[in-house]
This record gives sequence, structure tokens and C-alpha cells, in this order.
Amino acid sequence: MKNEQVLLARRPRGSVEEDDFRIVETEVPPLREGQLLARVHYLSLDPYMRGRMEESKSYAAPQPLGEVMIGGTVAEVIESKNPEFKPGDFVVGMGGWQQFQVTGAGLRKIDIRAIPASAYLGCVGMPGVTAWYGLTQIGKPKQGETVVVSAAAGAVGSVVGQLAKLRGCRAVGIAGGKAKCELVTGEFGFDACIDYKADSFKADFKAATGNGIDIVFENVGGTTFDAALARMNAFGRIALCGLIAGYNGQPIPIQNVRSLLVNRLLIQGFIVAEHMEVWPQALAELAQHVAAKRIRYRETVAQGLSSAPRAFIGMLKGENVGKQLVKLV
Amino acid sequence: MKNEQVLLARRPRGSVEEDDFRIVETEVPPLREGQLLARVHYLSLDPYMRGRMEESKSYAAPQPLGEVMIGGTVAEVIESKNPEFKPGDFVVGMGGWQQFQVTGAGLRKIDIRAIPASAYLGCVGMPGVTAWYGLTQIGKPKQGETVVVSAAAGAVGSVVGQLAKLRGCRAVGIAGGKAKCELVTGEFGFDACIDYKADSFKADFKAATGNGIDIVFENVGGTTFDAALARMNAFGRIALCGLIAGYNGQPIPIQNVRSLLVNRLLIQGFIVAEHMEVWPQALAELAQHVAAKRIRYRETVAQGLSSAPRAFIGMLKGENVGKQLVKLV
Repeated sequence: MKNEQVLLARRPRGSVEEDDFRIVETEVPPLREGQLLARVHYLSLDPYMRGRMEESKSYAAPQPLGEVMIGGTVAEVIESKNPEFKPGDFVVGMGGWQQFQVTGAGLRKIDIRAIPASAYLGCVGMPGVTAWYGLTQIGKPKQGETVVVSAAAGAVGSVVGQLAKLRGCRAVGIAGGKAKCELVTGEFGFDACIDYKADSFKADFKAATGNGIDIVFENVGGTTFDAALARMNAFGRIALCGLIAGYNGQPIPIQNVRSLLVNRLLIQGFIVAEHMEVWPQALAELAQHVAAKRIRYRETVAQGLSSAPRAFIGMLKGENVGKQLVKLV
Repeated sequence: MKNEQVLLARRPRGSVEEDDFRIVETEVPPLREGQLLARVHYLSLDPYMRGRMEESKSYAAPQPLGEVMIGGTVAEVIESKNPEFKPGDFVVGMGGWQQFQVTGAGLRKIDIRAIPASAYLGCVGMPGVTAWYGLTQIGKPKQGETVVVSAAAGAVGSVVGQLAKLRGCRAVGIAGGKAKCELVTGEFGFDACIDYKADSFKADFKAATGNGIDIVFENVGGTTFDAALARMNAFGRIALCGLIAGYNGQPIPIQNVRSLLVNRLLIQGFIVAEHMEVWPQALAELAQHVAAKRIRYRETVAQGLSSAPRAFIGMLKGENVGKQLVKLV
């Protein structure tokens, strides 16, 4: 059986290009005892992958050259030599950028009756737990506080704001363009969303954060982060989740250092995979909210594995709305 | 009775100048019930005062124009209508930049037999508790970890390193000039001290932090802070105590933002006056160490109240060694 795969062909020089990837076709190996073969239905594309493409400096081992790109997947078991799984089961795991996954470990069975399969890669998966962890464990929101989220239309940001609303906070998003901002305030129910591309950004941001900011969930870094720092209340908390604006090699300095001291701010960088102890609690809460439609989500779905590199590049540029997926089946 | 006082005459434009202050002579008012009159022996000069001289942006109410500059003091009671104090008692309080203090509250009686009076403005006072709080409550040092302290020859920094050593850590100081660095490794017993004025700073700093950095106690900000960020280990903690390099109006950006995320760092800005609950515990530990000479200190003592403005300006430029005091009696 043939297995289409996307490999990392070379490390990016600056911006990621399609030529950084190579598509190959290999044979699916025979199953050993304890393994299963699963057909990937959905591949998740996430900003952290950009970091892994680098030689070093990333917070995890680099993606090896010439190997299948890492990535979260939802897959359907089609053959099993593992007693815990049977054909027809749906599983979440790190299947990578390929059509078929052969593995014996690292899988979680999912129930796709109440919640669509793809959501397990979004709000009921890693992005959702990321939002939950940063908001609740670092931000520690109190009723009536103001929470600011960058990349608010994205898979993580949209959940941060909705969880903040469910905890009685004022949720203010930052996103690029009118359409995304309307999605954030409309579909996701934020109190306000500021378009960072608008000329009136500074004035808009000030108007939307009239009582200052208590919590920042930072996905982007750069000028919008500095704008948030300038509006922080005393004892504010900042969950530092991502610096997508700096992923292409240029770190963006923090200008507003004084606010850290003057307002006695807390900043905590985090990686949700290091806090597995909270996943069961987080996933349980997220699944309830999603099933009850108290947390809504959007997806941008690219069709076919070969579209993954282009979709990934687009996501890094902010072209997606909500969770970026690739649908393989 | 005449009382010489130093007032804030105007708010600084950029660097502090002597003309920003005005020296006046007033009459000591008669005592009301509950008040006491005390003669100031020592006035403490501290970096936080620079922040208070600004119109706003500071973490506390600005120092009012035309009023006596705020400041910590050790004073001797010479007349009392307060049953808790009698002539001859020594008290620590916020007496301000003046010869005589009339007050009824905010005083702590001190014992100057085992510990010299001036130390209550240094390692057994606010600077000492600042060091204790940032290191123990934010840094949470574990044996064998590496602690980096900027302004290591100063009143706070020197105590940070000595407390770190007492907890089994490697203490690395940053200071300006060979003399200060020798003091830090000699008198204060740090494992290493890096001269930020030396051309070889980067290489020296790397050599002194061969196992990376687990805790930073930051008093300065700017390029030395960025150098520390570049050497941080995963899950490092940064107690942000001061940004003296930025006090003259130019905030110094943090360049190394990526390290915050990649190394999952914690930054916490703090002001020790907001954590009064730890003062008794901190002062008890510090007093024991100082009395037993396990914590040593240096003082730079200016003579006479009228020398306070010049001494303060010198301290902001790093001309002092250890705690900057003004001796009035």
C-alpha cells in the first residue's frame, strides 16, 4: 500500500517556502505486534511547527531533515495488532504529514458522535488546552477583569476569549482585518476586537480597554504586545504562548519594559505539552462547552495532503481563520 | 528650633541635576499628643526615589513639588509625647531629607547594640528585604543553581548574592569596574563577578555561567539583562526589581524576547513595600546573618544634609559602592 508523505527537505532561510518541503511516496510497512495502521483524516497545522523547522533555538528537538513532518492528526484505525484498538476506532495522535500512520503508542481514542472529529485538533485538542492553561493557570482570571488576546480569530485565541467570557471577564481580541474582527465579536462573542491593520489601532485599542488590562494572552509579540503592555493594570498577568511575528528569524524587542516593573507584571512563557497533568481537566471542560455550543470555532480546511505546505505558509502569514487543518479523506 | 530640609524644586528633565532640589530652613513645629521629635542620624538614598520625582508613570504617588523629599531614615528620639517611645530610642522610618522628623506613626524601634544603626537602612532594612523577597519568593533557589545579580556591589545586589551562597547556589555578579568586581568576589564572596564595562564582557559572562542561568535578580535592565536572557536555562525565574538604566526617561528595550518563550521563563516585577507580610521573617533572617557576619556590607556615606542631592546623582550614575547614605549627625 502506498503512503504519500511530506518531508522536511531543508531548513528555511527566513520565510518558509514550498521548496522547504518534499512530497514522496513510500510503502506502508507491515504491522508488528502491538501496532496499528490508521488512515489520517485530518492533519493539524500549527505555529509551533515553524520553530521545529529550525536547527536549534527551539524549545524542542528540531524536526529531522528528510523525515516526515511532525503534526497532530485524527485518524481512523483500519488494521490493528493492538488489543486496545479495533478497525473503525478514531484516534488522535502525532501522525505527521502523511496519509497513513503506523504506530503502537501515543494515541487517544475519541468519540466523534457529540463532537466532530476535527474539533479534537482544535478546541478539544492541543489549541484548546493551550488556551485553557494560559488563561486559567497563568492568567488566573477574576470576574470583571479585562483579558486581551492577540490572534483572537485563531484556534487558540478564539477559545481564550470565550473561556474568559464564561468566567465573567471582559474579552478584547486583536486580529488582522475587518472580517476577522467581526468574527471575533460576532461568532466568538468577544466584547471588542481591534484590527491591528487599521490606522486607528492605538485609539481603538485604548477605547476598548478603558479599565486597563488585567490579563494578556500573547500569541504574536511585537507592536501589539507593546500596545498591551502600555495599558496594563497593576499586578497584571501575561501568558506568553507564542511570538509568531518573530518566527521568521527577527526577534521583535519589547519596548515597554518599564511597564513590567511599574505595574509589577508577571510574564510566564509556557508550552502546554509540558503540563500533561492538566489535560484531562481541561479537555473535560472544553468538551462540555463545545458540545453545548458555549464555545464555538471556525476552521480553515485545505484539501489533500499536497496542499499542506502552501496552507502552512498561509497560516504563518495569518491567512487562515480559526483552526488550520488539512483534510486527507 | 531650625530644621534644614531638602525639597523637590522641579521635576527632572532627563538626568537629575542639583537644581532639581532646593535647600530651605524651617521651624520645627510643636509636638501634638502622640507625636515625637527625632533627630535624623542617617538618610538612605535609593533608586526608587528617581521614579517618584516623575510626574507619573511611577509605581507610587509622585513626590509633591515643593515638599520635603521622601526617604528612609534612622533617627534618635529627643522628645516624645508618644508613650511607645522615649528620648534615646533609635527608630527607623520615612523621615525624609531633613534634620528633624516630627511624626506619630510609621516608626520601628531598633536595637543598635549588635547591629550598627546604618545597617537598618541597608541589609537589615528595605534593601535587604528587597533582596530576600526577590531571591526567595520569586527566584525560589534550589541548591546548585546559578543566580545572576546585576548591580552586585550595591545595597540590594550584594545581599542577593550572599543569600544565594547561603542557599548553596552559584552566585555571579555584574558590576561596573574592576574595583567593584573585586569587592563582589572578595568581601561578598560571590563565585564570579563580570565587569560590564570591560571589552570582554560577553566572553567573561559566558565563562562565568557555564551551566546557564536559573535565576536573575535584575536591578538594571538594558544590555546586561539581554546578556542574561541569552544564557537562561529552561524554567528560569527573573525577579525584576529595578531598571536603573532606564530611569532617565529612555526605556531600554528587551531584545531577547524569544528566550522568554523558548525557555518558558517567569518574569515578575515587584515592590517590596507591597509584601509587608514577609518583612518580619526576612528581617529576622537578615539580622542573624549580619550579626554573625555571614552577610557583609559596604556603605558610601556622604557627610551633611546639603550633600544629599549630589550624592543622589552620583548613586544614579553608579558612583557609590554598597549602600548610599547621608550622615547628618
